[in-house]
This record gives sequence, C-alpha cells and structure tokens, in this order.
Amino acid sequence: MANVVRFGVSIEERLLERFDALIAEKAYVNRSEALRDLIRASLVEEQWEKGEGEVVGTVTLVYDHHASDLAERLTESQHSHHKEIVSTLHVHLDAHNCLEVVVLRGAAAQLKHIADGLIGTKGVKHGKFVATTTGELG
Amino acid sequence: MANVVRFGVSIEERLLERFDALIAEKAYVNRSEALRDLIRASLVEEQWEKGEGEVVGTVTLVYDHHASDLAERLTESQHSHHKEIVSTLHVHLDAHNCLEVVVLRGAAAQLKHIADGLIGTKGVKHGKFVATTTGELG
Amino acid sequence: MANVVRFGVSIEERLLERFDALIAEKAYVNRSEALRDLIRASLVEEQWEKGEGEVVGTVTLVYDHHASDLAERLTESQHSHHKEIVSTLHVHLDAHNCLEVVVLRGAAAQLKHIADGLIGTKGVKHGKFVATTTGELG
Amino acid sequence: MANVVRFGVSIEERLLERFDALIAEKAYVNRSEALRDLIRASLVEEQWEKGEGEVVGTVTLVYDHHASDLAERLTESQHSHHKEIVSTLHVHLDAHNCLEVVVLRGAAAQLKHIADGLIGTKGVKHGKFVATTTGELG
Repeated sequence: MANVVRFGVSIEERLLERFDALIAEKAYVNRSEALRDLIRASLVEEQWEKGEGEVVGTVTLVYDHHASDLAERLTESQHSHHKEIVSTLHVHLDAHNCLEVVVLRGAAAQLKHIADGLIGTKGVKHGKFVATTTGELG
Repeated sequence: MANVVRFGVSIEERLLERFDALIAEKAYVNRSEALRDLIRASLVEEQWEKGEGEVVGTVTLVYDHHASDLAERLTESQHSHHKEIVSTLHVHLDAHNCLEVVVLRGAAAQLKHIADGLIGTKGVKHGKFVATTTGELG
Repeated sequence: MANVVRFGVSIEERLLERFDALIAEKAYVNRSEALRDLIRASLVEEQWEKGEGEVVGTVTLVYDHHASDLAERLTESQHSHHKEIVSTLHVHLDAHNCLEVVVLRGAAAQLKHIADGLIGTKGVKHGKFVATTTGELG
Repeated sequence: MANVVRFGVSIEERLLERFDALIAEKAYVNRSEALRDLIRASLVEEQWEKGEGEVVGTVTLVYDHHASDLAERLTESQHSHHKEIVSTLHVHLDAHNCLEVVVLRGAAAQLKHIADGLIGTKGVKHGKFVATTTGELG
C-alpha cells in the first residue's frame, strides 16, 4: 500500500463543526477520508482542465433503440474507437428506452471528442460525460 | 414512434453561423438534432433540481480493490439498495485500481443519498454522480 | 476573530505531493488555507442544494442596451425585487454590449426564481447565476 | 441591429410541450428567445474550453474584512492586473463580511489565473469564477 503521512490543519472551530455535520450526513468514516476526496476531486478537475496525461471517463447515454438503426450506429462508432473504449454497460429501461454507459481511457482531448460524437448521435435523448482518473492519484 | 411537429426559430444570422460551426464540429447531423439535445438537457436539469418523478442516474467510482475489504463493503452497500440499483459495470484499470459504474433508478433524493454513500465509502478515490432521465422525455 | 482549532489529516504521501503542487500553482499560502476553501465550497454547495437559510448569489448578464427598452425592463424587474436585490454593477463592454452583475440576498428558491427571470429576459445574450454565502461559514 | 434569419426545427410533440412548460416557468417571451439562450450558452462554454479569443469573466468573493490586511492585499492584487480588471463591486454583507464582484476581460487562460489568485488569497471564504462573453455572439 501507499506510504501514509500526517499533517495538521488549522481551522475555525465553527467551520469545523459544520464540516463534521456534513461528513456525518454523507457517511464518511472520518475527516481524513472526506478531505482526501475533496483533494482528489480538485486534482482530477485540474488534470482534465490541462488535458495532461492518460485519463479515464464515462459517457452515459439514454436512447430509444427503436430509432432507426441507432443501436447499430452507436456500436459501429464505438468499434471505430476500440482503442479508447474499454467497456460498455447496457440497461433496458423500458420497452423503448435504453441506458448505455461507455468507459473510455486515453488522452483527455481524444476522449472528449469521442464522447461528443456519441452524445451527438441522432436519436440519443440525453448524454453526459464524466471525467475521472486512472486511479494513480495516491 | 412519437408524433413529430415543426416550428420556426428567429435568430441573428451571425449567431446561427457560429452555432452551425459548433454542431459541425460536434458531428450533429442537423440543427434540429442539436437543438433537441439542448432542450432535453435543460429539462433533465430542471427535473433533478425539483426532485420530481422517477429518474435515472449513474455513479462512477474509482478505487483500489486492495484497500481492506472495500470491494466487499461496496457490494454490501449496493445490495442494501437493490431496489434502486439496477446494474453495475466493473473495469480493471490496472493491478490495483478498479472503475465501477453503478446505474440507479428511483426518486431523485433517494438516488442522491445512495450516491453520496458510495462516493463517501472509505477507500474510494474519486466518485461522480450523473443525473439523467428514464427516457420518457419525448 | 473566530476561535481556531487544529486537527491532523492522514494522507498518502504521493497524493499530498500532488496537492502541494496544485496549491503552489494556485498561489495558496499554505495547505490549511487551501483545505478551508475546499471545505467551505462543499458546505456552500450543500446549503444551496437543500435550499436552507439565507443565502447570497450573483447574476452576471451580458446584453445589448440597444435592444428595445431592455435596460428599462431589467431595471424594472430589479426594482420589483428590491428586497432581495442588494446592488448592481454595470460595465460598458463596447458601443453595444453591457455587462451587469446583480447581487441578491434571501431564500435560495426565491433568488433562483429572480435569477431565472433576469436571465430569461428577451435580449439578454448570456446569463449565469453564482450561489455563494452570507459569510457566516466560519 | 443584427440581421435576423429564420429556420425550422422538427421535434417530438411531447418534448415540445414539456419545453413550452419550462420556458413559461422561466418567463421566456417565446421559444426563439429560449433557444437562442441555449445556443449562446453552448457557444460560450466552447469558447472557454478552447481558450480562444478575448473573453469576459466575473469573480465573486466573500471575505471578512477584519482578516489581517486582506482588503489591502486584494486591492493590491487587483491593481497588479489593472489591464485585465475592469471594475469591482463591493457589498457590505454584515459587520464582518464583504462580498466583492470583480469583472475581468482578456485571454481566457490569463483570466483563469487571476481568478485563481484572488480566490486563493488567505482569508477569502468563498470564491467562484463565471465565464461569460464580450457580447459579440450575435
């Protein structure tokens, strides 16, 4: 496991009380865990803003699989980016609607481009891209 | 399929030219498709802000599966919400790190609560919640 | 001044190194300052999500003051909410375009409603709402 | 005034009904106005993502003016960027807290850097940056 260090934080008592209430509500086990999450989130945001290094992202798509050959076009589009597309989860929401989550890995700009293409595919009702990390952040 | 209608939009010529350039870049097939996406995105946002009706969401988690019993705790937490948790996709990022995407369905507030619990689990390095729709938006 | 306390945080060494690089780049004076900012930002987000208590927000508007009686309509709309609208800053961007920043204070839902009204006013080119705090967060 | 053109949009009837309900609630005068706002917002987002051209932004800061020489440090920092800082609005929230909105204009990356510096200043409780436009979007 990673080498763990310890440092001290100065904070106004009232601010700490409010933070403790928030982390209790969010079910964090302790302050360190909650702060590490805030720290990692700010690093992931920075990494994506700068477009540096290898990153991981997910695209959530909702669409009607009855729309003319949409499922086929999405599959084809995913295959043409097989190097970046790691895996896909498909959920049948009802008789018409599907939810698909596509996991991508590669350079930030390239992932953003593939995600735009999937979300912009005719017939896709809603699409959202999430930028995350390969996990090498401590 | 849904009943399709048509209406006219007035717009400054220069603004339309710039929008056309943007949708070409994002690979939309035409303006209607791009505008329907903008419209649906604003409806999904509103639906989540108001917390109305049944919604769908995904949670993206990155974690080290070597962290003491984390995978087990995540699985248990997901089982205790089996009514809302529809499906889970698991990807092995490297020898240590996993990416998990959890698909949720139910009332907005309840989904947000479950997502907070998963993201706040000790050992989860990065977590993001995406609000989407059951697809019943036209 | 507020009563200041101190507590310890455990963190992976590599994660701390990367956070130190980020806060150096963002010109924070020390880790405590950077962490207090992350903590307050998460509290402000929570406060707005729950719609609790008195909050403060700003609306940034860009519009062409030549658009028929727009400036007048914006002023009137602001006067009809004089209880919530604290102050307004007006900047002349060029011969046509104005930027206006409106500071609001009151209940979250009410501020959101006023902001929607201002942003949706015919002729406003771009509008953005920022949720902040009355400052009573430690 | 700008040259106005007109084009047709095809859309599912149910989706249009829901959009009409949303724009009524947000007090838009008609669909064209609402759609132009969605279009401009997507262009502004793109412009900032790419970091192209001259842009405008606002920084909202909340701080305690009793914090040692904070107001002075903020003023100094603003003066050292007088070329980009257009104007500042100051509001007295209570006996301790101030809200300050700073309007910036220049290259995207430079504005982001100045905003980071202001938000990261020791004693600033909450800060948010808003990216907007010079208004030259139609």
